[in-house]
Amino acid sequence: MMEIVPDLVKLLRAVRLVIFDFDGVFTDNTVLVSQDGNESVRCWRSDGLGISRLRSIGIETLIISTEANPVVTVRANKLKMACKQAVEDKAQAVLQACMDLGVHPTETAFIGNDINDIAALKSVGLPIAVADAYPEVFAHVAYRTTKPGGYGAVREICDLIFHAKEDTLDLVGIYAA
Amino acid sequence: MMEIVPDLVKLLRAVRLVIFDFDGVFTDNTVLVSQDGNESVRCWRSDGLGISRLRSIGIETLIISTEANPVVTVRANKLKMACKQAVEDKAQAVLQACMDLGVHPTETAFIGNDINDIAALKSVGLPIAVADAYPEVFAHVAYRTTKPGGYGAVREICDLIFHAKEDTLDLVGIYAA
Amino acid sequence: MMEIVPDLVKLLRAVRLVIFDFDGVFTDNTVLVSQDGNESVRCWRSDGLGISRLRSIGIETLIISTEANPVVTVRANKLKMACKQAVEDKAQAVLQACMDLGVHPTETAFIGNDINDIAALKSVGLPIAVADAYPEVFAHVAYRTTKPGGYGAVREICDLIFHAKEDTLDLVGIYAA
Amino acid sequence: MMEIVPDLVKLLRAVRLVIFDFDGVFTDNTVLVSQDGNESVRCWRSDGLGISRLRSIGIETLIISTEANPVVTVRANKLKMACKQAVEDKAQAVLQACMDLGVHPTETAFIGNDINDIAALKSVGLPIAVADAYPEVFAHVAYRTTKPGGYGAVREICDLIFHAKEDTLDLVGIYAA
Repeated sequence: MMEIVPDLVKLLRAVRLVIFDFDGVFTDNTVLVSQDGNESVRCWRSDGLGISRLRSIGIETLIISTEANPVVTVRANKLKMACKQAVEDKAQAVLQACMDLGVHPTETAFIGNDINDIAALKSVGLPIAVADAYPEVFAHVAYRTTKPGGYGAVREICDLIFHAKEDTLDLVGIYAA
Repeated sequence: MMEIVPDLVKLLRAVRLVIFDFDGVFTDNTVLVSQDGNESVRCWRSDGLGISRLRSIGIETLIISTEANPVVTVRANKLKMACKQAVEDKAQAVLQACMDLGVHPTETAFIGNDINDIAALKSVGLPIAVADAYPEVFAHVAYRTTKPGGYGAVREICDLIFHAKEDTLDLVGIYAA
Repeated sequence: MMEIVPDLVKLLRAVRLVIFDFDGVFTDNTVLVSQDGNESVRCWRSDGLGISRLRSIGIETLIISTEANPVVTVRANKLKMACKQAVEDKAQAVLQACMDLGVHPTETAFIGNDINDIAALKSVGLPIAVADAYPEVFAHVAYRTTKPGGYGAVREICDLIFHAKEDTLDLVGIYAA
Repeated sequence: MMEIVPDLVKLLRAVRLVIFDFDGVFTDNTVLVSQDGNESVRCWRSDGLGISRLRSIGIETLIISTEANPVVTVRANKLKMACKQAVEDKAQAVLQACMDLGVHPTETAFIGNDINDIAALKSVGLPIAVADAYPEVFAHVAYRTTKPGGYGAVREICDLIFHAKEDTLDLVGIYAA
């Protein structure tokens, strides 16, 4: 880790749209598979408070997922978030979302955990990886969370952006990736 | 951590009512989300023995939860505990519970894990945070458990109060937050 | 931990009956509680191989549980083990099982994890605690497993007894509690 | 761990068929048992990307499991993999699979985690154990994964073989078992 990068604060303050990969970001990247074919994923209760605080200051949020899976819909609905599933090309989906919402990619954050997120990470102003992402991802991000996916990573990102926007960010211990 | 605070023992002995937040206290703060929308949470079997020992010496217990969720009802029923859900203002709910039960707030413990518990923690005589609470919470508590939420934190608190009341508390290794 | 106690090997060789507590021994002591009231517990796949090897050399096994819970029945059936549930007095249940099977308590092992197992542990020749048992338990056991409950503790005990009986025990790293 | 063994790279390049044990390899070796007898296992989402990359370069894959369990079928179907269940003799099943597919055992990898995998491990050119396998297994493998079963071990093996085949293998930090 490098020393704190003032640019990171600038990037956080510029954010108007936050786009999340689902598995490994909202979840711990495991899936519970039952014998009758039902899938369940493990999420972090405190993510909800972070997402709703972002909403309260007008930040747009979106979940993008490669797979079409009802569990993503269920979680997105619970968090009152929009989601796009069965996304073949995440970078393209990011750009489309920016256009739809009238937000510039430089004002957009993308959070991923695996190599199929790299193109999307390269397409935004604030690329972020969860603490336990695949190592190939870290070369392409401006920030690596301290919390793993499914254990507070989403909340951590929400808190960073919220406090940067509100000018209440505690810079101690915040480093660029 | 500071050295053991004799006041902590006094506070433990004074307790007549113990109020718990649910997610992150009775659970590890994760939620299992199934594709059909069913939610499950992970609890600690040995909490039950602690709660029933508190009951056996006349201590009142209560669960307070922001969200209205059937899983809280299920767990509270299993532990034979009262619960209040869909609570917007936890501090207000704590005071109401004190009035209903005729217990003074200084004789009340509240256990939380997140920033939306801070007002409630400030309103009671014995504010407690679980080991893995959000760091902002620790400034407002008299005790931080050694066990994380969902992995023995509730039992630990029950044991502390039980042994303080019974005068069998082993003070070795007990420190104020 | 003390140095290896030759008596431990003797105790292992004498065992004809192994009685297990369920929660915290066969499981990691958590319970998954769903919103419709269904409970699930987390078990270790490799316990099965250990139990079946004990059976193959004529060792009796039994699960004793305080609570009456269908999940215990389900797991016991899967492992082809007998189980007694809704047991108020575990020590009494241990002695009864010894009588029923014609095995002396000194030829019996009991494995527990919490303070309500202490009386049963005191009643047998080979009292064992899982690695992550409540500390009060350790004063009453001859062996503490290296693996936690639900993560190989049962298999470890089965392997120890099996290899002691077969005279293939690798004593390196085996210590009394 | 020894230094990197050039032979390991040769073995990886020779692989045409990869056979996996299921529990403890695709899963973390736990099983969630519900009170109505339903079993669930915990898998790693990112295994799918690894398996599909192997498929894309013509490597055959197969799951072999001792137990007949619908959960194996469910996971195999999701990953579009073949599976053989209720396999009494894994070494025999490995040889049969080699014959069926016209692949020599020396061009085959087998991944296991427990002592009942040892005969199968001995029968192939590239025997592999997951990081958290039973220690008895390690004497019989050419490679031990850095990731545990159910937490990326399968993906790690897929990546190793893929990059060895594509000549993009990063040898830093890769050691023989």
